[in-house]
Amino acid sequence: MTYEAPVDDILLALKTAAGLSEEMDKGAYGELDEETLRAVLEEAGKFASEKLAPLNAAGDRTPSRWVEGNVTTPPGWKEAYTAFREAGWSALPCPAEFGGQELPETVAMAVCEMWNGANLSFGLCPLLTQGAIDALAAGGSDELKALYLPRMVSGEWTGTMNLTEPHAGSDLGPISTRAERRDDGTYRIFGTKIFITYGDHDLTENIVHLVLARLPDAPEGTRGISLFVVPKRLVGDDGSLGGENDVICAGLEHKLGIHGSPTAVMKFGERGEGAVGYLVGEENRGLNTMFVMMNAARLAVGIQGVAIAERATQAAERYAEERRQGRAYGVRAGGMVPIAEHPDVRRMVLTMKAMTRAARAICYATAREIDTSHNASDEAARRTAADRAALFTPVAKAFSTDIGCEVASLGIQVHGGMGFIEETGAAQPYRDARILPIYEGTNGIQAIDLVTRKLPLGEGRVIENVIAEFEVTARRLKGENRPELGRAGERLAAAVADLEEATRWMGEALTKTPALALAGATPYLRLFGVVAGGHFLAKAALQELEESGHAGQSVALARFFAENIAVGAGGLSAIVMSGGHAVLGASADLAPA
Amino acid sequence: MTYEAPVDDILLALKTAAGLSEEMDKGAYGELDEETLRAVLEEAGKFASEKLAPLNAAGDRTPSRWVEGNVTTPPGWKEAYTAFREAGWSALPCPAEFGGQELPETVAMAVCEMWNGANLSFGLCPLLTQGAIDALAAGGSDELKALYLPRMVSGEWTGTMNLTEPHAGSDLGPISTRAERRDDGTYRIFGTKIFITYGDHDLTENIVHLVLARLPDAPEGTRGISLFVVPKRLVGDDGSLGGENDVICAGLEHKLGIHGSPTAVMKFGERGEGAVGYLVGEENRGLNTMFVMMNAARLAVGIQGVAIAERATQAAERYAEERRQGRAYGVRAGGMVPIAEHPDVRRMVLTMKAMTRAARAICYATAREIDTSHNASDEAARRTAADRAALFTPVAKAFSTDIGCEVASLGIQVHGGMGFIEETGAAQPYRDARILPIYEGTNGIQAIDLVTRKLPLGEGRVIENVIAEFEVTARRLKGENRPELGRAGERLAAAVADLEEATRWMGEALTKTPALALAGATPYLRLFGVVAGGHFLAKAALQELEESGHAGQSVALARFFAENIAVGAGGLSAIVMSGGHAVLGASADLAPA
Repeated sequence: MTYEAPVDDILLALKTAAGLSEEMDKGAYGELDEETLRAVLEEAGKFASEKLAPLNAAGDRTPSRWVEGNVTTPPGWKEAYTAFREAGWSALPCPAEFGGQELPETVAMAVCEMWNGANLSFGLCPLLTQGAIDALAAGGSDELKALYLPRMVSGEWTGTMNLTEPHAGSDLGPISTRAERRDDGTYRIFGTKIFITYGDHDLTENIVHLVLARLPDAPEGTRGISLFVVPKRLVGDDGSLGGENDVICAGLEHKLGIHGSPTAVMKFGERGEGAVGYLVGEENRGLNTMFVMMNAARLAVGIQGVAIAERATQAAERYAEERRQGRAYGVRAGGMVPIAEHPDVRRMVLTMKAMTRAARAICYATAREIDTSHNASDEAARRTAADRAALFTPVAKAFSTDIGCEVASLGIQVHGGMGFIEETGAAQPYRDARILPIYEGTNGIQAIDLVTRKLPLGEGRVIENVIAEFEVTARRLKGENRPELGRAGERLAAAVADLEEATRWMGEALTKTPALALAGATPYLRLFGVVAGGHFLAKAALQELEESGHAGQSVALARFFAENIAVGAGGLSAIVMSGGHAVLGASADLAPA
Repeated sequence: MTYEAPVDDILLALKTAAGLSEEMDKGAYGELDEETLRAVLEEAGKFASEKLAPLNAAGDRTPSRWVEGNVTTPPGWKEAYTAFREAGWSALPCPAEFGGQELPETVAMAVCEMWNGANLSFGLCPLLTQGAIDALAAGGSDELKALYLPRMVSGEWTGTMNLTEPHAGSDLGPISTRAERRDDGTYRIFGTKIFITYGDHDLTENIVHLVLARLPDAPEGTRGISLFVVPKRLVGDDGSLGGENDVICAGLEHKLGIHGSPTAVMKFGERGEGAVGYLVGEENRGLNTMFVMMNAARLAVGIQGVAIAERATQAAERYAEERRQGRAYGVRAGGMVPIAEHPDVRRMVLTMKAMTRAARAICYATAREIDTSHNASDEAARRTAADRAALFTPVAKAFSTDIGCEVASLGIQVHGGMGFIEETGAAQPYRDARILPIYEGTNGIQAIDLVTRKLPLGEGRVIENVIAEFEVTARRLKGENRPELGRAGERLAAAVADLEEATRWMGEALTKTPALALAGATPYLRLFGVVAGGHFLAKAALQELEESGHAGQSVALARFFAENIAVGAGGLSAIVMSGGHAVLGASADLAPA
């Protein structure tokens, strides 16, 4: 078994970090109860562990291949996808109107973690399709939705997001793919897109590309970008498949990781007539719709970070229990002990576990805010939740994917020399994980988003309230006064105070010295992640103590995290508040532009 | 140009961190003067940049191959090796008696950095050969030395270190390769070794294996291990090559990185008669000789960490200057700017530069102590230097290789999506670097070595004196009172105080609660590295100010490091002193064994 879906840990995070039990009791999730939830998770976990995980290494060794314009996915991929679709897993969070199961975002994310933990390259296909569904559902006309959504929700067709061009990556302003209006209300698309995940494949008969392009009379920059649906094969009004559209896959990238997932160069209008496209939303407003989708996708990428960290942690734990080397310090007799008993290895494995749980908690809590933003009974509660989801999303994306890489790297280290040998399987997560801090907005961009757009939400009251909650948790933890918690309460309280101070500093810097605020954005995001992680692990510990009266694994991990990770908050806050001048250099202009 | 040997930066580190100018003035390095030194470095830099760097990517894409027992190195490798040997680069630090140039360790390490920065996989071959030379020179009989050393020093033959067996990695005690005595004073070796770097190749006619094995009547564990020379081809008394020894290369590993470097499974005595071996040193005392060699090799692996960090930093800097995306925050007009101008990218690039320079300084300072331990005029000075070299070696190895991985990872991040595409070249250092924290003693083992064996040196006075030097530097930095230094002096002084406190705690923990000391070893080593790095960068800054009166790049990097990296020392020290209980868990036995 290379990956076992961590159903119990996931349920724990859903209940403590996402507060799902409470929400279900309140009826916020309709019919959903704990029994159903567990059943869904166990069924998904079974599929992930038994059907997807065994294909993970094969996908790495036999990457998706491009042969004369067509992409062949790795052996077993197509059968697995068909089984995935037939089992109804494509449709979890989608509207019932289009055949979806309307499961809450929280549950969808929990299930998404399992696909990606089992097989990150495979998991990207439904992840991107979900993004395309969200964008179409948010911005598409009724006709477009009726034609495309049922087939995408069922998994009969997959979806892609076509944003990046060679000169337009993080900055979409200079996009030059062009769209021409036709009299029949359709458009013709011409241009080249790169880094298109599952841009072509053999899993389904059709692929629905969402493409950003510019009309001839569009304003410059990001305010002149429109969004189009461009199917690989044309679709009749009755949904029947017609001929090929003028869209070709010109090649695949040779990547560090996620070899199973085809990363395509896509050419639109290469044959001359132009690819037939259908406008989504209004002309020149394409980025608005895209951002709706991107926020959801950012959380999902954060979940991928959790997933890869979980996978790496499981492997390292197994290895550390099996591999025997050396004896305890000072002991000369007896056989060798499992390396898990050596304090330094314990530290590595605990760091992996604690970081993974912290990131999971942050992601699930974000998903829960998204759910509440939809299902809360009053408007104010919905708006508050939407703001909180907006605040947490860049942290969920960046913190989780950063620790995904760090945990995967520790995973290799725990394996020693064997970790460097590809057959062992510890190297693949290290390679696969490395894309996560980059795509769907680099982690630097997430940090800038957090600092410049999210901290100011509600004139700073959104972050204030969140920090106030962290403070309550830290106070409760301190109040426990149990020896098993060591100095965890004290450490967490100090970390929250550090975050508060850095947040106040950020508020001022944003108006007075924005360049300094930007220079501190990445350490600020890390600080936020570390404190939020400490808060959620502490909540789990408090709940464990309350329910069982006994200090178990949740207490142990909360303590470890507070004393060994959150304790770094003071340094991070000092970097945020006084490290920026050295970043900008003597010559930098600190005044607001 | 994928790599340009950083001759100026290397000279700067040699002069500031290693104090080479001073030493040369004192005549400690004999004839060597600054002009000669620069000439050597420039010549080596040229070879590295022009001959080795161009083969780096090819070595990655066309790994060394095993075909029916023989290993073929990547295209161009053999020609490059021959040129390397003919130019006399194999012989730098070796005794003149055996044809070496007797250049000091400091200069050898500087040159070693260039080979490995240009091409880590290639650089491993002379690195391992040097280790074998050191071991033979330290423990071999006059006959063995006369027969083997001249050919190894000239590069005509290469050397390998055969330690690891499947069940004996970090712990060499259970080694089961067996050695039988023969009447003629030779031995016959039987057994399997794994992870043997350049265990077989086509670069030279012979390969000199140093092999750890156990005699039939040897005591159990590490006190029963002997060291043997086992040549690939037998060698006549006149040095002529005879038939094949009973040594075969049974296969190569498929690795995450350093694909150019063949990592072999070696079988001794597979044909039945046993591989002919010659004892090095005394029976059962093989590990003593091996440890002599391993200490030198550990520093060289630290240098590899510096080298890979330098390579990654150069690539990231180039890309950040060329790649244009976005505008300054708040600016809406004008073209896109190089991403190097964005504060968050600047932070990444500065982190890469500052970490690389810090690690380089630590490694070169260690090499200088090794030189002084040989060339100081009085015995006491030699012993002090040897102790200091012993103290710094695990830090040089572990800190430099940890930051090697971190810097390579940042290098990918600076490249954005392009960083994940193999053709870009940013992914290879990330893969190659990952072995460095593992081989020649994992970084966890380095940390344990530092804490349990090196801190107690001289009853704690060795570390005390080092910290006292750090304090002097921090005080001088504070005393500068220049605005360009910001709060660097204050930050460094606080970091030194944190190290001092953690060191005192370690001293007590080692005797009273050794398990806690071990649990804190890795964060302690990082703390030491961070403070030492800050100290050396500050020394360079002070020297810059003294010599030019002007705050240039050394001041900027020292400030950046102190305010953005050394500032984390407080957190690290707290982890060392109070994080261990959470690592060990409630049930751990804290009493000394």
